[in-house]
Amino acid sequence: MKTAGILNVTGYAGAELARLLHGHPNVRLAAVTGRSAAGKRLPDVFPHLWAIDLPIVETLPDVDVVFSALPHAAAAEHLVPYIEAGTPVVDMSADFRLKRVDEYEAAYKVTHPAAHLLQRAVFGLPELHRDEIAAAKLVAAPGCHSTGVILALAPAFAAGLIEPDVIADTKTGLSGAGRTLGLSVHFSEADENVAPYGLDGHRHLPEMTQELGTLAEAPAPSITFVPHYIPMTRGILSTCYATLRPGVSIDRDGLKRAYRDFYREAPFVHVSDAAPSTKHVAGTNYCVIHPSIDSRTGRVVVASALDNLGKGAAGAAVQCFNVMSGLPETAGLQSLGLFP
Amino acid sequence: MKTAGILNVTGYAGAELARLLHGHPNVRLAAVTGRSAAGKRLPDVFPHLWAIDLPIVETLPDVDVVFSALPHAAAAEHLVPYIEAGTPVVDMSADFRLKRVDEYEAAYKVTHPAAHLLQRAVFGLPELHRDEIAAAKLVAAPGCHSTGVILALAPAFAAGLIEPDVIADTKTGLSGAGRTLGLSVHFSEADENVAPYGLDGHRHLPEMTQELGTLAEAPAPSITFVPHYIPMTRGILSTCYATLRPGVSIDRDGLKRAYRDFYREAPFVHVSDAAPSTKHVAGTNYCVIHPSIDSRTGRVVVASALDNLGKGAAGAAVQCFNVMSGLPETAGLQSLGLFP
Amino acid sequence: MKTAGILNVTGYAGAELARLLHGHPNVRLAAVTGRSAAGKRLPDVFPHLWAIDLPIVETLPDVDVVFSALPHAAAAEHLVPYIEAGTPVVDMSADFRLKRVDEYEAAYKVTHPAAHLLQRAVFGLPELHRDEIAAAKLVAAPGCHSTGVILALAPAFAAGLIEPDVIADTKTGLSGAGRTLGLSVHFSEADENVAPYGLDGHRHLPEMTQELGTLAEAPAPSITFVPHYIPMTRGILSTCYATLRPGVSIDRDGLKRAYRDFYREAPFVHVSDAAPSTKHVAGTNYCVIHPSIDSRTGRVVVASALDNLGKGAAGAAVQCFNVMSGLPETAGLQSLGLFP
Amino acid sequence: MKTAGILNVTGYAGAELARLLHGHPNVRLAAVTGRSAAGKRLPDVFPHLWAIDLPIVETLPDVDVVFSALPHAAAAEHLVPYIEAGTPVVDMSADFRLKRVDEYEAAYKVTHPAAHLLQRAVFGLPELHRDEIAAAKLVAAPGCHSTGVILALAPAFAAGLIEPDVIADTKTGLSGAGRTLGLSVHFSEADENVAPYGLDGHRHLPEMTQELGTLAEAPAPSITFVPHYIPMTRGILSTCYATLRPGVSIDRDGLKRAYRDFYREAPFVHVSDAAPSTKHVAGTNYCVIHPSIDSRTGRVVVASALDNLGKGAAGAAVQCFNVMSGLPETAGLQSLGLFP
Repeated sequence: MKTAGILNVTGYAGAELARLLHGHPNVRLAAVTGRSAAGKRLPDVFPHLWAIDLPIVETLPDVDVVFSALPHAAAAEHLVPYIEAGTPVVDMSADFRLKRVDEYEAAYKVTHPAAHLLQRAVFGLPELHRDEIAAAKLVAAPGCHSTGVILALAPAFAAGLIEPDVIADTKTGLSGAGRTLGLSVHFSEADENVAPYGLDGHRHLPEMTQELGTLAEAPAPSITFVPHYIPMTRGILSTCYATLRPGVSIDRDGLKRAYRDFYREAPFVHVSDAAPSTKHVAGTNYCVIHPSIDSRTGRVVVASALDNLGKGAAGAAVQCFNVMSGLPETAGLQSLGLFP
Repeated sequence: MKTAGILNVTGYAGAELARLLHGHPNVRLAAVTGRSAAGKRLPDVFPHLWAIDLPIVETLPDVDVVFSALPHAAAAEHLVPYIEAGTPVVDMSADFRLKRVDEYEAAYKVTHPAAHLLQRAVFGLPELHRDEIAAAKLVAAPGCHSTGVILALAPAFAAGLIEPDVIADTKTGLSGAGRTLGLSVHFSEADENVAPYGLDGHRHLPEMTQELGTLAEAPAPSITFVPHYIPMTRGILSTCYATLRPGVSIDRDGLKRAYRDFYREAPFVHVSDAAPSTKHVAGTNYCVIHPSIDSRTGRVVVASALDNLGKGAAGAAVQCFNVMSGLPETAGLQSLGLFP
Repeated sequence: MKTAGILNVTGYAGAELARLLHGHPNVRLAAVTGRSAAGKRLPDVFPHLWAIDLPIVETLPDVDVVFSALPHAAAAEHLVPYIEAGTPVVDMSADFRLKRVDEYEAAYKVTHPAAHLLQRAVFGLPELHRDEIAAAKLVAAPGCHSTGVILALAPAFAAGLIEPDVIADTKTGLSGAGRTLGLSVHFSEADENVAPYGLDGHRHLPEMTQELGTLAEAPAPSITFVPHYIPMTRGILSTCYATLRPGVSIDRDGLKRAYRDFYREAPFVHVSDAAPSTKHVAGTNYCVIHPSIDSRTGRVVVASALDNLGKGAAGAAVQCFNVMSGLPETAGLQSLGLFP
Repeated sequence: MKTAGILNVTGYAGAELARLLHGHPNVRLAAVTGRSAAGKRLPDVFPHLWAIDLPIVETLPDVDVVFSALPHAAAAEHLVPYIEAGTPVVDMSADFRLKRVDEYEAAYKVTHPAAHLLQRAVFGLPELHRDEIAAAKLVAAPGCHSTGVILALAPAFAAGLIEPDVIADTKTGLSGAGRTLGLSVHFSEADENVAPYGLDGHRHLPEMTQELGTLAEAPAPSITFVPHYIPMTRGILSTCYATLRPGVSIDRDGLKRAYRDFYREAPFVHVSDAAPSTKHVAGTNYCVIHPSIDSRTGRVVVASALDNLGKGAAGAAVQCFNVMSGLPETAGLQSLGLFP
């Protein structure tokens, strides 16, 4: 049994992490922090967590593992002492996802508080980096959009099937925007509405390029990524479009086989025969991927569905922790989806 | 470890039961039936149950406990052999809830297929009937509206605080209407809409009257019950209105104390200080109850929130099974709510 | 053609008013104000109003009629000069709804800025006060909950059918909470949720008591009013419960006749044979009312449906303006509902 | 004043058409048909149309214009007599959209009932075919997805800016699936869910190819089109991706100018500076288009928003009728959107 602490439990990803760790057979959630809510108890902020009757404190006691749900920049700043002390850390912010500090600073418009640690961090996608995560002390869980897009395209890039130019069109539930108030997530404005955002470039793009770039042969992937808000709370559907490379001849069944082969060791990826629905994975750490080929144009179309707070955030963090700790990868993550 | 079978797994209550039993530490879900879907596998009908890779069969093999999600009349008909063979049965239909066959037949417009078994059945609300359930072989899980209303009013009736005339106004998510197609649950008609239904009398009313009647002093409760469909999937909020009996003097705190006292042994009832929200109990077996007194009129107002597929159906069935089996009442039911 | 100005167009009621006045055959919307948005153009704040390309200014020029969508207290303060100058005013705040300043000050916790004008104001429900509105220069459009509840109960009180003790349980879409940000209207918290609010007393209650009190014989109505937020944008369904007075003998048809008789001159009230749905009146000034009697308990149950921004706010304001101006009561308000 | 009849008023497009024609200053809606509902009155089927108290009949009397909301194949079959009699016809089905009968028959798996009329029909997009529509007696209103995609890409193809390979990813509200019941539009399954559909080829694709093909230089456009259902009732957002042709040098402002120039005579197209939201056009005939260029990849990204029942169906039909009849193109279509 390991003791765990959560930094900044007061957002949705932090709360989901608390829920998952509470049900984890090998973890005791020992303490949680939260800036504005310090002094309250966790169920005061999140009544659904009534069984986790912890005080929200300002600093963590000694724990076996630190999970951070702090926003970017604040995360790195607060995590440095733990990292330097050798405490295993799983960070859900963007701070340790990118290898190149220039890309981080261009995307986040901030000086990286601990750039010297970037090379030590591992990108927290066990489907691509299981062995490195197992050996790591600092793991950066990916962005929610990134997970959906990278998992949807990784097998095709790895097998050399597709051209570097790809398009990723994602549709996300509004919990992805967090608990911070804003007009775009005000119920009356967001309900019965769909709109693209981030047309000037979304921060998750460099992660996608970095990770798919390690799989693809040169030249590097060139990704057009457009996320959309849709009127629901949880879930991301990522629809990715790519072109087969000249000389590649593959049909839908062959493509599906390539995907199943790529993910044969991945307990949370399900390559499906039917189009995926986000509702089937609500509350879980699963990602359903449906690769297809448009029979008219020959274009590759891959759709993936996941829960942005599950596999897209807190679930991924727990999965990484399991791998880091030598636990079964699925420990504490085996609940089925809540449907309907 | 007990083996369990589910009759008619193909509706929402059946599927939720499968999900709960799959995660139950003392149960092995051995078989499931489903009329129209026989021959398919469970994940073909419900992809979110991919880990329960059972065939849907026509008849159950021998199991230690039978759960029925069959509709009324069909339930009694199919359950008779199990009941007569002494197999423990938990039925989620209305067939064994009412003691008086005339009330059943008036409400359901059908001749009861096994009226001789009514006196043997126990109403499946452990909060009221824990000892009888523990000794029973045939338990009838209550209707979803009934659970919310009975739990909201039981302490007040039991303590002799309120007059028999009460009003119950419930707001239910549309999964309560089941998986059967219909215009009132067609997305474009139900979305962004609220409407009352059952103004000519809803079938759950006799259950409420029966159960509250056993708690109340004479005369019997006279309940006006109006359910409403609201545009969400899971959850029932029941708002109940009652008048204090002449001579009763109690304030909000006193009322709350009476409720907490009544439910002090009930692990799934939470008497709250704040108004309850259905979202806080989504996916759980919990019922949050907030008793209050309107300071202007002196009227008692009690609001309860539960998940209609959880405490309102499948969760209650599992809870009853636990009590019948001498297991901890909370076995397999300890997941926290999925929020947001 | 009359010129109109809107004070504080930047909330939902103000924007809906702009939409309605833009389409009104006898009105030219001349100017709009808005505190924080002054300097912008109306379509910058509300893109759906692209055809109303007015600047948002700080003060209105001379207009034939002033509509105010200012919040309470601010409304009275800003309207005094117009009222004193004799300009016709329709106010959508609570400032001029109540006759008794003590009730206003108790409900709104503020000193009334212009209490001397209260007796000059008329409560803006043409269904009850058509003649007074026609003669008035200052009309106060009712609260959205009040309109639904008063219209649902007025005929029964006026005909002496029911006891003074009544219960009003309303279910409202979240646009009723306005455009001000807050956690209870944050999409991820409000979506898939229902909860009561205002259990300590809602500000619309005194309006209901005042208006129904003028219709009822003594003693005055005693109303328990509990509003609920439900996950949709527009619409209020009000379910009202009352007891027939001793000696009153009436059946459903008789009740319906009494209602139709009461509203025979009311172009926007439809007494329906079926249970009402808010979706059928979305975007309109209509109120559908369905009176019924619970055959088991003899209790009167009346459900009404309206659009909280239509008949519950901006539509009512335009209707009052029409009556004040000697125009056809339905001018500019004849659009059918947007369904589905 | 022209008399109009609607064939098959009982679906959502038919009902929306009735609503629009009822409010049209130059039209008297004389009669409506509906197969299953014949004998009822229109408000019995659609209570929101209470002011259009027409009986639903089996066959139309003589009218000046026939609108058809019949499904494909049935439409052509029923319209032949009107067309041959020279009555102006606006058809909302797919029967007269495609010029090539083989493409129709391949997409709809049915023998075209009146293929000889295809060359006489005009594709009902006034933004592309205003003069032909003005001279036509038979106009085929486009599919809802087609309208969004064609309007989004037409200016770019017409100006020779983009390569023929394009991707169209659309997100549609569920009213687009019609009033026919089905599990994919059952509230509890569709709520809080997003999924792609039509991955094997959607029927609207040939329309897009045909219309964009007439604008583009050779070779013909090659479109990958993937529609998605999202949990809302009205609205389609179409996100289209294209590659600039070699040698084309244009920036965002230049692109926007090209779009504004193309649509300078189009009263219902608004080329916007900001990303479009479907909610801003709910209930209208407007289409908001936002052309952009991804600054990293140089790819053209165009998003368009419309109401699938408005500009995507009934609104377009009325617009075509206006053009055919020499009326102002905007007659009866000037209502502003219903927001929020």
